[in-house]
Amino acid sequence: MQNHTWFAERRERLRRLMAREGLDALLVSHPANRYYLSGFELHDGQCNESSGCLLLTRGGQDWLCTDSRYEEAAAGLWERERVFLYQGSPAEDVRALIRDKVSGTTGFEAKILSWDYVRRIEPGLTLREADGLVEELRVIKDDMEIARLERSVRLNHDMLAWLPSILTAGRSEADIAWAMEKYYRENGASENSFPPIVAKDAHAALPHYRPDKPAVLTPNCHVLVDQGARVDQYCSDQTRTFWVGDKPSDRFLKVLESVREAQRRAIAHIRPGVSGREVHQVAVDFFASRGQEKAFTHSLGHGVGLETHEEPRLSPRSTTKLRPGMIVTVEPGLYYPGWGGARWEYMVLVTEDGCRVL
Amino acid sequence: MQNHTWFAERRERLRRLMAREGLDALLVSHPANRYYLSGFELHDGQCNESSGCLLLTRGGQDWLCTDSRYEEAAAGLWERERVFLYQGSPAEDVRALIRDKVSGTTGFEAKILSWDYVRRIEPGLTLREADGLVEELRVIKDDMEIARLERSVRLNHDMLAWLPSILTAGRSEADIAWAMEKYYRENGASENSFPPIVAKDAHAALPHYRPDKPAVLTPNCHVLVDQGARVDQYCSDQTRTFWVGDKPSDRFLKVLESVREAQRRAIAHIRPGVSGREVHQVAVDFFASRGQEKAFTHSLGHGVGLETHEEPRLSPRSTTKLRPGMIVTVEPGLYYPGWGGARWEYMVLVTEDGCRVL
Repeated sequence: MQNHTWFAERRERLRRLMAREGLDALLVSHPANRYYLSGFELHDGQCNESSGCLLLTRGGQDWLCTDSRYEEAAAGLWERERVFLYQGSPAEDVRALIRDKVSGTTGFEAKILSWDYVRRIEPGLTLREADGLVEELRVIKDDMEIARLERSVRLNHDMLAWLPSILTAGRSEADIAWAMEKYYRENGASENSFPPIVAKDAHAALPHYRPDKPAVLTPNCHVLVDQGARVDQYCSDQTRTFWVGDKPSDRFLKVLESVREAQRRAIAHIRPGVSGREVHQVAVDFFASRGQEKAFTHSLGHGVGLETHEEPRLSPRSTTKLRPGMIVTVEPGLYYPGWGGARWEYMVLVTEDGCRVL
Repeated sequence: MQNHTWFAERRERLRRLMAREGLDALLVSHPANRYYLSGFELHDGQCNESSGCLLLTRGGQDWLCTDSRYEEAAAGLWERERVFLYQGSPAEDVRALIRDKVSGTTGFEAKILSWDYVRRIEPGLTLREADGLVEELRVIKDDMEIARLERSVRLNHDMLAWLPSILTAGRSEADIAWAMEKYYRENGASENSFPPIVAKDAHAALPHYRPDKPAVLTPNCHVLVDQGARVDQYCSDQTRTFWVGDKPSDRFLKVLESVREAQRRAIAHIRPGVSGREVHQVAVDFFASRGQEKAFTHSLGHGVGLETHEEPRLSPRSTTKLRPGMIVTVEPGLYYPGWGGARWEYMVLVTEDGCRVL
């Protein structure tokens, strides 16, 4: 199937959700949502420099709105007569387009569009907040997405197989992060899917740690590596925790064994119909059985796709029931301030009768 | 002077602008503005994943609002008792903070905050749209910023001195872009300051072109390279157009000579008191004197600092008068669809009596 057909098919599925919500049109501005429905520009220049938006209508006429810099890119993806190029201010031009083409209610992404932008398109239009509709589709990966995510994870596995060869005493966290990025970029990735974590010993206990130049691996230390690549636009996200040297400490072995056992049990629990909360609780219960539950300080996992963090969550508050085609990370960890920590993360595809680790 | 003192001094200058605008407080969410006033997190995780915001008050008490992942980073920059960690929803928590600490009007960045976020903080508060106040300070670079921008441009010049050694027939645009990025990353830059352009022959006429793997340099072609690095958080941005081979075509030499002469004349015109429009017009007039003005299809330049594109603009609509401490690009170009184009870009610091090319 051509890519164009995939995108058109997704727009038809979205039209059914628009009908359910009583929307006559939907303005899609979130970069990943825009790409998902059109193939147009996964990234914006800056948060306040949008590459464009889509105006989808119940009647089936859809516009790709952008500025002249993107004219050629748009023309390769969209019927020429439905590419709407801004002549002046994007917001005022989009307002005029909606006024001309839509009778009824237009939904917009209130968590994405700025206050100022909505104020500009508002006059004379009937608008309604309509977040999450495209995300409702994106939560279930289609075959093209699964194939792309598998390629992304495969590169991640290849990198992880190579990584221990450079985890040697004397190398800094920052050097290792850069070496991983080069591996990705020189083997098919367009970019890191998020800023990688390379955290030695006590650093591994810090949830938002960034690799540091002066932090150098020492003989017999542990190092937590959380990283991923973007391949064919789709993100991978995996964590491992390594021992550097030949004498892993008892404490390290014990912590890591708990983490991996928690992960095994959680994954064994993943199947359609189970909620994100229940899967999270499996890991919590296991850690509690060993008196370690206080050292597990984050949620168990999250969806991954065009964005590194998307729905569904495996967290204490997630009532979402898992369904076939969802892809989630399963990443239990145990953290001890001053000592360090361990985390192990796989990406898991929910299948008809259980799940499959990618 | 310590970095902390610089940031505090900027907040005092901002308080004078808040007084002028009749604002009792200002909520700062734009990542570059937040960093400029605090040193905290220049980047957000994603556009919809903010690292935090600042609440500045006329009385001089300022809060850094963030979540627990950033607690340690915040503590290194800010008084512990003024670090406000979200307990629940960021918007509702920030609303409670404003309600407790501010009597009067709180300004917010309407072009940055989402519609949904403002709706959540609105109840019971007196809010007013207040975009551009921090940008009004940022437009004039202080000594610390000039020093950092000079380091960023110096690395850019070093890279450009090395670049011709890899501009050889057989190499692809994408390979060249990646080689430039590696040069930057391995010589002190944290990242590219924007996605680089490497555009061979006809590609050079496309304003938003991205380097392509199959597009390979050939003997006696021209290639336009627009790129920059981020060093110590500050962006560089320079363009050059090279001939690959030893027989530059007459057309190339003629186009490039016009571009460089337009640039020389525009730079000679830059001094305090001259408007962005006037400088742009110098280039237009020169091109018009040679009948080439239709091939100059963009504005002459833009401010550069924490962001690659910031105020002031050198454009037909820019009435901003140049002042000492502004740093702008000067980047005339001529483009001929099907053939290609040439652009040459310097970064220029406005001084007391003229300007200095960085």
